Amino acid sequence: MAEWQRTHTCDQLREEHVGSTATLNGWVLTARDNGHQVFIDLRDRYGLTQVVFRKADDAELFACAQRLKAEWVLSVTGTVQKRLEGAARADIATGAIELEAKTLRVLNECPPLPFQVDEFGTELANEDLRLQYRYLDLRRRTLQKTLVLRHRLCKVIRDYMDANHFLEVETPLLGKSTPEGARDYLVPSRVFNGEFFALPQSPQLYKQLLMISGYDRYFQIARCLRDEDLRADRQPEFTQLDVEMSFVEREDVLSVMEKLAADIFDKCLGVKLPLPFPRLGYAEAMAKYGSDKPDLRFGLEIVDITDIAGASEAQFLKDAVAGGGVVRAINAKGGAAAFSNTALKPGGELPKVAETYKAKGLAWMKVEGGKFTGSTEKFFSDELKAKLKERLSAADGDLLLFVADKEAVVCDALGALRIHLATKLKLYKNWWDEKAEHEKAEKDKADAAKKKKEVYVPVPFQPRAEHFNFAWVLDFPMFTWNEEENRWDAMHHPFTAPMDEDLPNFWQNESLGKVRAKAYDMVLNGYEVGGGSIRIHRQDVQSRVFEIFGMTPEDAQGRFGFLLDALKSGAPPHGGIALGLDRWAMVIAGTTNIRDVIAFPKNQKARDLMTGAPAAVDARQLKELGVKLS
Amino acid sequence: MAEWQRTHTCDQLREEHVGSTATLNGWVLTARDNGHQVFIDLRDRYGLTQVVFRKADDAELFACAQRLKAEWVLSVTGTVQKRLEGAARADIATGAIELEAKTLRVLNECPPLPFQVDEFGTELANEDLRLQYRYLDLRRRTLQKTLVLRHRLCKVIRDYMDANHFLEVETPLLGKSTPEGARDYLVPSRVFNGEFFALPQSPQLYKQLLMISGYDRYFQIARCLRDEDLRADRQPEFTQLDVEMSFVEREDVLSVMEKLAADIFDKCLGVKLPLPFPRLGYAEAMAKYGSDKPDLRFGLEIVDITDIAGASEAQFLKDAVAGGGVVRAINAKGGAAAFSNTALKPGGELPKVAETYKAKGLAWMKVEGGKFTGSTEKFFSDELKAKLKERLSAADGDLLLFVADKEAVVCDALGALRIHLATKLKLYKNWWDEKAEHEKAEKDKADAAKKKKEVYVPVPFQPRAEHFNFAWVLDFPMFTWNEEENRWDAMHHPFTAPMDEDLPNFWQNESLGKVRAKAYDMVLNGYEVGGGSIRIHRQDVQSRVFEIFGMTPEDAQGRFGFLLDALKSGAPPHGGIALGLDRWAMVIAGTTNIRDVIAFPKNQKARDLMTGAPAAVDARQLKELGVKLS
Repeated sequence: MAEWQRTHTCDQLREEHVGSTATLNGWVLTARDNGHQVFIDLRDRYGLTQVVFRKADDAELFACAQRLKAEWVLSVTGTVQKRLEGAARADIATGAIELEAKTLRVLNECPPLPFQVDEFGTELANEDLRLQYRYLDLRRRTLQKTLVLRHRLCKVIRDYMDANHFLEVETPLLGKSTPEGARDYLVPSRVFNGEFFALPQSPQLYKQLLMISGYDRYFQIARCLRDEDLRADRQPEFTQLDVEMSFVEREDVLSVMEKLAADIFDKCLGVKLPLPFPRLGYAEAMAKYGSDKPDLRFGLEIVDITDIAGASEAQFLKDAVAGGGVVRAINAKGGAAAFSNTALKPGGELPKVAETYKAKGLAWMKVEGGKFTGSTEKFFSDELKAKLKERLSAADGDLLLFVADKEAVVCDALGALRIHLATKLKLYKNWWDEKAEHEKAEKDKADAAKKKKEVYVPVPFQPRAEHFNFAWVLDFPMFTWNEEENRWDAMHHPFTAPMDEDLPNFWQNESLGKVRAKAYDMVLNGYEVGGGSIRIHRQDVQSRVFEIFGMTPEDAQGRFGFLLDALKSGAPPHGGIALGLDRWAMVIAGTTNIRDVIAFPKNQKARDLMTGAPAAVDARQLKELGVKLS
Repeated sequence: MAEWQRTHTCDQLREEHVGSTATLNGWVLTARDNGHQVFIDLRDRYGLTQVVFRKADDAELFACAQRLKAEWVLSVTGTVQKRLEGAARADIATGAIELEAKTLRVLNECPPLPFQVDEFGTELANEDLRLQYRYLDLRRRTLQKTLVLRHRLCKVIRDYMDANHFLEVETPLLGKSTPEGARDYLVPSRVFNGEFFALPQSPQLYKQLLMISGYDRYFQIARCLRDEDLRADRQPEFTQLDVEMSFVEREDVLSVMEKLAADIFDKCLGVKLPLPFPRLGYAEAMAKYGSDKPDLRFGLEIVDITDIAGASEAQFLKDAVAGGGVVRAINAKGGAAAFSNTALKPGGELPKVAETYKAKGLAWMKVEGGKFTGSTEKFFSDELKAKLKERLSAADGDLLLFVADKEAVVCDALGALRIHLATKLKLYKNWWDEKAEHEKAEKDKADAAKKKKEVYVPVPFQPRAEHFNFAWVLDFPMFTWNEEENRWDAMHHPFTAPMDEDLPNFWQNESLGKVRAKAYDMVLNGYEVGGGSIRIHRQDVQSRVFEIFGMTPEDAQGRFGFLLDALKSGAPPHGGIALGLDRWAMVIAGTTNIRDVIAFPKNQKARDLMTGAPAAVDARQLKELGVKLS
């Protein structure tokens, strides 16, 4: 070992080391100079150690130390000593000691940086600037913790999958473009000019082929790419845990995956999730929560009142019902006081939410002193009011909200309203918000103790199972009608199997809307965190699906011939799932910014602000590829 | 669980299960029908179980079983029973029992396939055909074992790296093209028409930036791509174990990595590698073995005889020495009889090998009855012969081979000759060749025992440490002179640090050829299985390297500005390595075909014969990307 190399990390020295010699390597987090002593907080990935240079001990060394600035890289050799009474820190593991420097080596200097790396108590710099200097931003403790947690997440997943006999198999990055679904990233071929590879949107077909090859249980933490316009929580490159199993029914996949989820939450967050996860039919989810990814952390269930509303005197309700629509309601328990009549007027806060989802309006009533008030009250007889009261368990202080329209519109509007109400009424708390509150309170306690010359050791925050409401949503429709292109689309993807009992409808063009798929989504707190299905393993069924999508047999053979051939070469029943790993990392790290869980993310225009990619390339490169700029 | 689903895999039933009911799912490997009974060998990933259908028990079921063909997918429920005396198989785990079928469900049929999936005793079909039907070829037991082993290899690596505090961090697939080194695969940007991403040839710069960000220990099993013309052992997509460490010197990296190698060989092959690996200077490796990736399984060391040869009367030797060249020799111990004088004549077997590497010829002598014979003998005095004999430890039956030329040519020619001689003289054995011999011998014993109505349990083959000769090659030259382009190239890559003691030469243009780099290669049996270096962590040194390569400061800033900026923002000393995972999988699986260790490989023209990729794409797709075919 060279003299300059560390004997310990910045998180290892303790009282038991007092008196011994140690060498540390790390970055200057802070430097304080009181004229007699220079105190350096030296940082590495593992922790923080205080280094002290005393003028009285070595004036020359002290003068060198006075030059040190934030983010310089040092090697310091010195003697471990106990900190003075009252100078110990309870919030770091090395807080009882400090290193009295005897030798200092500056391994690298650092000019003043474009922004502060020390994030405590400072506002973060503009995100574009931080993305440009990503290597500096990555020094922030929270980002480091997040990437450590992402590593841990992947390790826990791989340990679990391995223990359950899944094989990780790498599938190609250079594949074939199959232009349905999202847009492919294309890669021109140099050997075959005019032809292109596509980067994978998912390893879907490869994993099915592995099942047909008899690999039985496959997984991959797979890199996937989609060339889509980015939303806040999307990146052009993403990672998914991709899973496929042979000889399974739906319940086998669900069981393996929810146990994995429990293992992840236990090992990464110390949270014991109750199993099994609740199972919810798609129809039930849409009716009760207005969404196929319901947030189950709160009630506010949607209730059908079509029969009651249809019997009222309100023309708009009667028209909606007569036109085949439905009327449904949410009882915002105790919400009467939270929303003024202004917030409920046309154009007010709540009607606006409903209108965003194409509802024509929002009717409402409040319950006060045992009586209904509000926009619609006068159209309901006492008898109907009594029915409403019973159906919606309405009591004093409640706010009742109605939407009347086609069923899909009602679901969307009330689903969105439900989330909006829960947020405004503070019916749930994200665990990271609770953590921030907790930590602030603990810091206040520590500060108060310090003033009284006492020591308070902050209690770390522990998330609880109630922060995480998982569910499975099942029994999705197989097809959705694409109004624009006047044809059927797959609700999941074209390789999803229809339910056995719906096969008679599947073979008839008139009843395709009634066919349900063997598809399932894993849902957490209102987000889809996984989706999969039992796949088609019969070639005739797969061909029929392609036919339903409007492909000719020649089309289907040209694009998916290898799959169709494989399906008739001894394909076993099989199914699988994919979990969005970036989303899982976000939940576990407690962030809502996807760029926090990716080491080198792109910005919202899919540009890497650090390297500048994409960029112009040499004309020679393009010539070899047989392409020109147009 | 559905009725058709397996209660056991095809590798689980044993004598202890006799009498119980079981359901198996799997593929028909073989079907034998003797008119009274149908025997099916049912196969899954885990193993093989014999299923029997008896006409006497159930004539209808028997008739169904008679229809079964190879590769049909079945669910069979039946009773486990002991096999008849003499019918037990010692070579499979379920060999003591069979399943007497009571219920048969055909889960999928299969027409006659384009080739045999059962590989035992059959020649493999043409590789193009097997690549076209890769999902069938992947059913072969050897390919399945290989992919299981590859999974195990990656798991062992990740367990080791995690236990040693390395973090796995994903780096981008869509990066910036930096057109030195190999050719990049390019990806046109849709958002910024005319600009391109490049797919990564390695995560080199990202991992260095992670060190600069303070991540301390990074690894990734990383997907990399190079658009090069393929050799037999190359694929356009490959995988490497990518590693980087901060605050390290060379020995730290070597030590971590050789312990990883030992762990891999122990857990994947049951082989205990002796540590540490031998360390060899580049100059020594070239002088002794004529190669910077020497095969150390055998001797045949190269010996310098320039002084002796220069004193001889042979004009071609004297000329070579006078012109600044060298004369070196190999003593092919006991090789005199193995190579006839015809094989040694100009144009013969051995001179041809030397000439492939640009040697002008090959001189030789044999030692017979204490005397030298051969093409060059007459030019050497008795005194010189005595010196030769001593220097080369020559004895009766030896063949001495000389090459005289510029040093680089002599090294290449004798290095190649050394390998050729060792192969012909059978001085080493690949472990898989020994395994094949062993297994054939064991099969013969089992067959012989069977004839005598006895049972012989074949002994599995166990590779030994002597099959694997690892070494580190160190102290490489930093620069090599590119004759064609009349400039210096990096021998490793432009981010490799020069040795501290060679820094004075590094700053002078005249002495660049003397500069050695802090680079190292891990070598196994004549292959490079890993390569890395301590990196440059000083911005001035990195800028100087770019200058040496002929870049202007503006050039360097435009292409590598983010790296140069990062190097002056508190970069720690760091270094790392990358191991070629495909090569490691080949060694451990015992194959010389890289396509055996990749689930869906490309052919030698980088085409996927199964999906047909690359392929033409829609005009609409190209229009969005702003490119045209030229």
